[in-house]
Amino acid sequence: MAEQKKMVDNNTSMEEDFAKWYTDVVKKAELAAYSGVRGCMVVRPYGTALWENIHDELDGRFKATGHENVMMPLFIPESLLQKEKDHVVGFAPEVAWVTHGGDEKLQERLCIRPTSETLFCDHYSEIIQSYRDLPKLYNQWCSVVRWEKTTRPFLRTMEFFWQEGHTMHETAQEAVEETMKMLDVYAEFAEDCLAIPVIKGKKTDNEKFAGAESTYTIEAMMHDGKALQSGTTHYFGDGFSKAFNIQFTGRDNTLQYPHQTSWGMSSRIIGAIVMTHGDNNGLVMPPRVAPVQVVVLPIAMHKEGVLEKAQALAERLSKFCRVKLDDSDNSAGWKFAEYEMKGVPLRLEIGPKDIENNQCVLVRRDNREKSFVSLDELETKIPELLDAVHQGLYEKALARREEMTYSVTNFEAMKENAAVRPGFIKAMWCGSPACEDKLKDEAGVTSRCIPEEQEKISESCVCCGKPATLMLYWGKAY
Amino acid sequence: MAEQKKMVDNNTSMEEDFAKWYTDVVKKAELAAYSGVRGCMVVRPYGTALWENIHDELDGRFKATGHENVMMPLFIPESLLQKEKDHVVGFAPEVAWVTHGGDEKLQERLCIRPTSETLFCDHYSEIIQSYRDLPKLYNQWCSVVRWEKTTRPFLRTMEFFWQEGHTMHETAQEAVEETMKMLDVYAEFAEDCLAIPVIKGKKTDNEKFAGAESTYTIEAMMHDGKALQSGTTHYFGDGFSKAFNIQFTGRDNTLQYPHQTSWGMSSRIIGAIVMTHGDNNGLVMPPRVAPVQVVVLPIAMHKEGVLEKAQALAERLSKFCRVKLDDSDNSAGWKFAEYEMKGVPLRLEIGPKDIENNQCVLVRRDNREKSFVSLDELETKIPELLDAVHQGLYEKALARREEMTYSVTNFEAMKENAAVRPGFIKAMWCGSPACEDKLKDEAGVTSRCIPEEQEKISESCVCCGKPATLMLYWGKAY
Repeated sequence: MAEQKKMVDNNTSMEEDFAKWYTDVVKKAELAAYSGVRGCMVVRPYGTALWENIHDELDGRFKATGHENVMMPLFIPESLLQKEKDHVVGFAPEVAWVTHGGDEKLQERLCIRPTSETLFCDHYSEIIQSYRDLPKLYNQWCSVVRWEKTTRPFLRTMEFFWQEGHTMHETAQEAVEETMKMLDVYAEFAEDCLAIPVIKGKKTDNEKFAGAESTYTIEAMMHDGKALQSGTTHYFGDGFSKAFNIQFTGRDNTLQYPHQTSWGMSSRIIGAIVMTHGDNNGLVMPPRVAPVQVVVLPIAMHKEGVLEKAQALAERLSKFCRVKLDDSDNSAGWKFAEYEMKGVPLRLEIGPKDIENNQCVLVRRDNREKSFVSLDELETKIPELLDAVHQGLYEKALARREEMTYSVTNFEAMKENAAVRPGFIKAMWCGSPACEDKLKDEAGVTSRCIPEEQEKISESCVCCGKPATLMLYWGKAY
Repeated sequence: MAEQKKMVDNNTSMEEDFAKWYTDVVKKAELAAYSGVRGCMVVRPYGTALWENIHDELDGRFKATGHENVMMPLFIPESLLQKEKDHVVGFAPEVAWVTHGGDEKLQERLCIRPTSETLFCDHYSEIIQSYRDLPKLYNQWCSVVRWEKTTRPFLRTMEFFWQEGHTMHETAQEAVEETMKMLDVYAEFAEDCLAIPVIKGKKTDNEKFAGAESTYTIEAMMHDGKALQSGTTHYFGDGFSKAFNIQFTGRDNTLQYPHQTSWGMSSRIIGAIVMTHGDNNGLVMPPRVAPVQVVVLPIAMHKEGVLEKAQALAERLSKFCRVKLDDSDNSAGWKFAEYEMKGVPLRLEIGPKDIENNQCVLVRRDNREKSFVSLDELETKIPELLDAVHQGLYEKALARREEMTYSVTNFEAMKENAAVRPGFIKAMWCGSPACEDKLKDEAGVTSRCIPEEQEKISESCVCCGKPATLMLYWGKAY
């Protein structure tokens, strides 16, 4: 789009139509564009830069906890996908099948990986022989494909980008510990890097991953009160090990099956960033992953010395933050709107008056707070302000979540509230999948998780009224 | 494989069977393993770490030259692939076709991208309207699939990893300059990071990329005298722009077609590293991309203070190089062989005597040169030694290439030499594709490139004897 022509026209407001607000922001902030391939998106430079920062932060955490990256094939032969019964039932209906290579019909169909447990297990069966080969702590960054009917950029696309950790352990206890450790890594990353408060908890059997013994999740609340599952970790026990005949000689010289985990976070998290922090002026980027942390805007650029000063400042800032100088001939008003839409955390304005006073203006994206800062103090003030934006975003999101979290104690209240009052609904559950199904079908809510921190809301199941000891979060979800 | 059991058994020597030597090294150094998917490999942690270092070095160069990363879909609809005539003829025979999503037969087949010109052009047609939108300097890191009959790890696999740059420019001249600039980036990277000397040149029309106006290449010589095409850049003119109807309003207010380039380097380059620097003891990693630059081996580890000292040294070295401490209970002899196989550039040995003398032993992988270095000087000596290994590798490879480069002036000499004397063969060419075909079919050599630096070997074409002004490099290739 021509810079000149491009104006930030009025965006749909989020109160008016949240879904349209979301897709407008994704498009206008140039995170992603629709492609000519149904259900697949083009992640544009700004979105890719965000994903790269997410990658770097997460990857550093994985490596710090002893994990190594590998690169597995894109294809899974049909017979390999079928090795673990629950897994194939869960995934076969939503995979893309390759049937021809060039003109030749394949003897066995290959699916594009929807997830890679089967490929990792196939490899592990080759390289694990002794307890000395354990643990294996592998991860890969890649894209996967799931054949979805309806899609939305980042939230649900046929192809999406993610990382998938797959680990093998000597004992069940070690594998369970890994499952919980990586859940903590995801939660810490979401809160400390993305400023997204999350609830950690366990999924019910209905909602767990195909083939897993148990699945854990971090759940975030979006601006509209809906939940977004933002990262999951799975404990597999030795089910896949048995299906793939992965055995090792233990310390006691007996043959044993290793215990497995997997865990993943995907480009969905970009949708979570948009829907947690965004407002009616567009995106708000959490500073620690923002592709541009500070945009430098020269004011009255034609005046002598302004452009040079702005260039010198941008050069100086590049030593300690991610900075962009916009010295295009677009108007200041256009630029303000443009970088608000893109959610750049700090705007630095520098004009002739400022230069005279050895100062600049810094404007926070999150609350529009404006401050005059001495040019001598930028090295301390900018990092402070970026931290303040991070903290401000986190607190605002947390306050919203608390405001939109409430309890109900009986089915009618659940049904009525779910219909009109979005949010996280705390309610007791007896543990029966039938109650969960009824709540889904008749009250329109799904179980989000069984949180670590339990409360006693009432004595009985919100659905059937039988005695209940488990408190769950319920809600509508993306 | 159990650490305890794993012994570095005798490797096939490269003189005996170069192809087997290569696959042995790739497997034993744990760069890659065969997967259960025909023609696809598992890139193991050591190979992936190498690819990540290659990624970081190249990506830094791309960004320094103004390029931005994007992420395009994995799929290309059949109709999109068919838009540019030469391109589809070149690629259709070797693509994998997706025909089903879940149980549903697709109305239009999708191929897995073999390269992404068509996807980029489809996107560019949406986002380029004015000369102000140019240039577009995009790159992506991904894997692509080409249906190959015979495969070898890294050198030729059905799925391979690469980056593909795709740029659009206002003028033909600008696009040609980009094509040459990126060729220089590849050559500088190969020489300065990988210690691989390369020859830059233009491909003949027979050998150019499907749909390109001209293709440029960097050609490296492997240990056995064969050539490996190590990176290519393509100038497309406005052929794709016309096929995809990409037009912009120029400075003179007329509608114009932009001019395009693409360029790529792939995981093949890992094969080039193995076959350029490797020896009969295994890999030799060029220090600037080596996953481990220094391995610290405690000697007589049971003696008091040795392990602690080794740990402290590894911690200290980690501040300025990539270091690994091996404090396993494997024998010193086993460790020496293991890290030779893995090609770690420097081995640091520290034992009780060394500690007493405040020194350690540093052994270079490339020439086995051993030096005693004071523990006070490691911060200067190790970087110096790593540079010396780099330089040593480069010079050795260059000397070998020069020794194995020679000229011929007639067809018989070409045929005889090509059969018995591997290397780069310089010979004149009249420019006729028929001569090129004959040299390929009857003398068994392909044209590698028309080098920038021309020499006059003789007056006439090596094949037909007609007057010739172009000197080409010819040879056998991977």
